[in-house]
Parts: sequence; C-alpha cells; structure tokens
Amino acid sequence: MRIILCGFGTVGQSFAKLLESRSEDLYARYGLKPRLVGVFDTGGSAIDSSGLNISKLIDAKKNHNSVKKYSETENNTSGTEMVNELEAEVLIETTQSNYNDAEPGLTHITNAMKRGMHVISVNKGPLALAFPSLMELANYNQVLFRFSGTVGGGTPILDFAKNSLRGERIVSFDGILNGTTNYILTNMANGMSFDDALGDAKQKGYVEADESLDLDGLDAAAKLVILANWIMGMKVTMPDIKRTGIRKINNDDIKRAAGKNSAIKLIASCDKELVVEPKEIATDDPLCVSGTLNAISFTSEHSGTQTIIGRGAGGTETASSILRDLIDIRNESTKA
Amino acid sequence: MRIILCGFGTVGQSFAKLLESRSEDLYARYGLKPRLVGVFDTGGSAIDSSGLNISKLIDAKKNHNSVKKYSETENNTSGTEMVNELEAEVLIETTQSNYNDAEPGLTHITNAMKRGMHVISVNKGPLALAFPSLMELANYNQVLFRFSGTVGGGTPILDFAKNSLRGERIVSFDGILNGTTNYILTNMANGMSFDDALGDAKQKGYVEADESLDLDGLDAAAKLVILANWIMGMKVTMPDIKRTGIRKINNDDIKRAAGKNSAIKLIASCDKELVVEPKEIATDDPLCVSGTLNAISFTSEHSGTQTIIGRGAGGTETASSILRDLIDIRNESTKA
Repeated sequence: MRIILCGFGTVGQSFAKLLESRSEDLYARYGLKPRLVGVFDTGGSAIDSSGLNISKLIDAKKNHNSVKKYSETENNTSGTEMVNELEAEVLIETTQSNYNDAEPGLTHITNAMKRGMHVISVNKGPLALAFPSLMELANYNQVLFRFSGTVGGGTPILDFAKNSLRGERIVSFDGILNGTTNYILTNMANGMSFDDALGDAKQKGYVEADESLDLDGLDAAAKLVILANWIMGMKVTMPDIKRTGIRKINNDDIKRAAGKNSAIKLIASCDKELVVEPKEIATDDPLCVSGTLNAISFTSEHSGTQTIIGRGAGGTETASSILRDLIDIRNESTKA
Repeated sequence: MRIILCGFGTVGQSFAKLLESRSEDLYARYGLKPRLVGVFDTGGSAIDSSGLNISKLIDAKKNHNSVKKYSETENNTSGTEMVNELEAEVLIETTQSNYNDAEPGLTHITNAMKRGMHVISVNKGPLALAFPSLMELANYNQVLFRFSGTVGGGTPILDFAKNSLRGERIVSFDGILNGTTNYILTNMANGMSFDDALGDAKQKGYVEADESLDLDGLDAAAKLVILANWIMGMKVTMPDIKRTGIRKINNDDIKRAAGKNSAIKLIASCDKELVVEPKEIATDDPLCVSGTLNAISFTSEHSGTQTIIGRGAGGTETASSILRDLIDIRNESTKA
C-alpha cells in the first residue's frame, strides 16, 4: 500500500515513526504493508517509489526543518504536483487546519479523490467547510474517506458513535471537544485569571498559532460539523453552527457556577440546533472533565447516555488514529 | 431469522418489545426480519414456527406470570426440549446468572451451538465459568457467539475495546463494573451506614436476589473474566480472579479517602493480575463515577487512556445490546 503524506509536523512524524515501529505487527495482524512513497512540507518534498527511509526523513526534518534535504539531489516537486502525479493508493492529509478557505488541504484531498486515491484527513478545515461535497466526491470516485483523528485525537469518538452504537438512534450529544479551552477554564476554576490561564496554556504549547481557533470556538465548531454530518446524517458546514467562545467568561461567572456545584465548560451540542457555547455543567456529570481532557456524551433512544473521555490531541495519539483508518481502508478495500 | 428466547424476565420482555417496535426500521436498515419462534420461562413455554405474537406473550406473562398460557392449549415442551428440537437460527440466553454450575444457561448454549445455532448470551454464568471452552465450541461448530450485554448492559464496552480500539494494543484496564456496589459506596460517601445503604439499594431493586453476587464482587469478577478473555486474549475463568467484596468497608475508610480527594470504589482491574477489590480512586479521575453508573478506563500503548461511562444495567438498555448483537450476527453470517 503506497502512501503520500501531506505535511510532516508533529502528527506526520509520529505517524511515520509508528509505521516503522509497528511494521512487523501490521503485516502479521492485518496483512498491511504500508510504504511511504512521497512526503512534503512547506519547505519541499521527498519521493521514492520503492519507499522512503523513515529515519532519514526524520533526520532531514530535524536538521534542516524540511524533508527537502532527504536526498543529495534536492527534490523540487511541489505538494500539488506530487498529489497530481505520484502513484499511490492512499493520501494522508496532515497540513494545518484553516477555516477561511481550507487550503491547501482541500485541494490535496479533492485532487487525490479524483485520481482514485483513498483519503485519510486529520486536517479539519476541509471537513468543516465542505463535508457534504467531499463525501459526494468520495462516493462518486468510489474511494474511502476517513478522518478519525479530527475529533478526539486518539480517542475513537467517531467510531464509537458510528459502530459501537450501531442499531441505536443517537438523539442528541454534548461534548467538550477542545482541550485548550478546557485547560484554561479548569485553571480559572482553580483561581487563575483568564489572561494568566491563557498565558500558561500558551507556555505549555496547547494554544494554536492563531489563538482564535481555540478561544472563539472555531476548533470545537469544526468538530461539531464533522460529528453532525457523520453521526447524525446532517448536511451542514461551519456557517450552520451558532458559536460563542470563552473570551467573555470571568472568574465571577465561574465562582457563581461553583456555588451551584457546577463548572463552566465550552460545550458543543447537537440537539434541536448546533451550538458551541460556554455552559454550566454539574460537577458530578461524567461530561465534566478537567484539564486538557475531551469528553462527549451521546444520548441514544434505547441505551441511555454514554460518555467517552480521553485526551483529544497529541502527536502519537492522533497518529494512532491514522493507523486505525489505514487498517480500516485495508479491510474495506480488500472486501470489495 | 428465527429466534429461540430462553428466559422471559425484564430483559427478555424488553427485547421482545424492542423487536416489535423496531421491526420496520430493522428491515429497512439492516434487512433483518427477526421472528420469535419459541420462548420459555420457569413456568412453561410458547412455540409458533410462524412467529409468536409479542403482545400476546407479554399479556400471558403479566396475567399468569408465565408464557405457558400464551395459547389455549398449554405447551408442555421444556426449555431443554425446545433448545434441542425447535428449528431456529439464533438462540438468545437471558436466564439468571449462576456462578456455581452456570445452569441451565450453560446447557442451553452448548446444545444450541452443537445444533449449529448462533448464540447471544446476556447470562454471565456460562461465560464466567467456561469462556475458553465455549469459544472453542463456537469455532468448532462455526457459529457466532455474542455477549455484548454481559458487560456494561447497554453501554458497548466490549465492542469499544475490540473494535473502536482496533490497531491498538490495550495494555491494562480498570473498571467499576457493578452498579449496585457503586450505588452503596456512593451513599456511604454521603454519610449513610453500610446497612442503610444496602437497605436503600434493596428497596430500589438494585440488589440481586442473592446479594452475595453484588457485595462479594462475583458479578464484577464475572465481567472481568469476560473482558480478560475477549479483549486481552487470556484464557481464564472465575477461579483465576483474586476477589474481595465491599462488606468490610466502613465509613471511616471512606472518610479517610475523602480527606485525600479520593473515593473508595470496587475496582476490577487487569494489569499483571486479575483483581476485584475496593480501591481508592482520585475524585477527578474520569473513572470515579457516582451512583449506579459503570465506568471503565482502557490504557493503550499509543492512544493513551480512554474512559467509557454509562448505565450498566436496565432492561431496555440490555435489550438494545442484544439487538446490536443480532445485527452483528446478521451482517457476519451473510458475509460468509
């Protein structure tokens, strides 16, 4: 199975390492022989149809901040050229989420699908802005489209709702889907001011380069779009979400909630409408998790409310979700 | 799909009602046309190869406390006879769990498998005492064996660990798997004595007829056996579990734990060994749930620790897990 990897940041590198360290096991257990044939980042690209050497790739990235220096003869193929020309079965899109026009990820994904490649995306931008049309494109081209890592990182939230609850009708859900704002709100509940809590989160590397993605609820809203489409069968995009971030929450609000044995959390909910907004949640509600944890409670018609909790981010965790998608693609595509 | 239903208590009746209320949907979505051809309880049995009328069954149970009076001419077929003689594709075992000899459930299951029937069990006894050999028997006879409802009731704990975490290696897990003891311990944490808390739980109908199943950790241990076999690939039965119940926990222990921001919970854990015992858990650990809730945290090699929380019992919830198993059997058996 030949793979093109778009982006070689934390997630891309963690995924490459995981492929290498688990190669024997993947073959033995799933008959999976993944081979990275092309990788690119903003600095350049590396191509080898017989399979790139992963240690060399990581060294090049570490020493030169790009995979461009993978081989002596620098490769000048652009990302778009690679996606349009290199032969592969699967494209994995890990470039940065962007909620203005979803580029360059959106072009990578659509072009790959048109060429008949299966696609795995951990980039939320294209899904947030164009979920319904990407699904149609995948169906039209008879390729598989997977994106487990976009919601919950390594925590298989989408799979849980779609598969473990099969036979059930999910009627509504509420989730804490952004770990950064949850970390900030948890620190504020422990007495820190908003500014200090934000500073602390930044120092720990939890905040996106564009802090608005976290603070104004864009990241949570993108995940809500994905859940609403994939789990509830809605056809919605970002503009359909009613969205309020956490910038206006102050310590008085939080104290008031605590007085009622509650905490303020940024909740993404799907009931009558799709909303991201700060809400008071009872502290003994399983949904009320602390720190950077994510949590989501699904309410089904017959089996009650079920909550799943885990870390929502992290390179290795998200890389493990890509691997799950790859195994899934391997199983599905050999079935047909 | 013809079904024999063993036992017609809360779960059996909820399942029958669910079949009736969802029949159109099951056919439209899964091509599933389930037909109850035989049902028995301790009082007698009802048989109709063209499909029993579910409302009539429920009326008979309500008015005569047995399905025996389903038709004018009482049916004298015993449960064992029905299992051995009636034609059906699936047997659903819902009689009471028994950890001495697992009967009569064990005989129902083994005889059905030998006759080539797929089996769904929500009865934990046979699995707790004979999981490895039942699995072998199912494989030998090429039938499917499902038991989602035995752990977590309607909360798909087994499925989550087996499927949603595919591609992962689960290295350990800890769970609160018995809602009754969790309810008692929660009440004790709120100041009630053990005896009062037990009395309250009994009054609410949470305690098994044989209270030892809850209080001495037998129910939790049975679920641990099932998880260890199914998820971790171990070949173990009840005697392999180190088990301590909650009878010796007193309010001082609980206060001492609370002083450390912890709570005492009956934890079933699988790490180096298989243990059920009361343990102190930090109150901000997602595992630390209150009331009758169940919770389990799986720790995987790459995707961290993930917790799933839900009600662990309830007729409708458990019935919905049987339905999931039935859909699963339908999908798997048409594949072959």
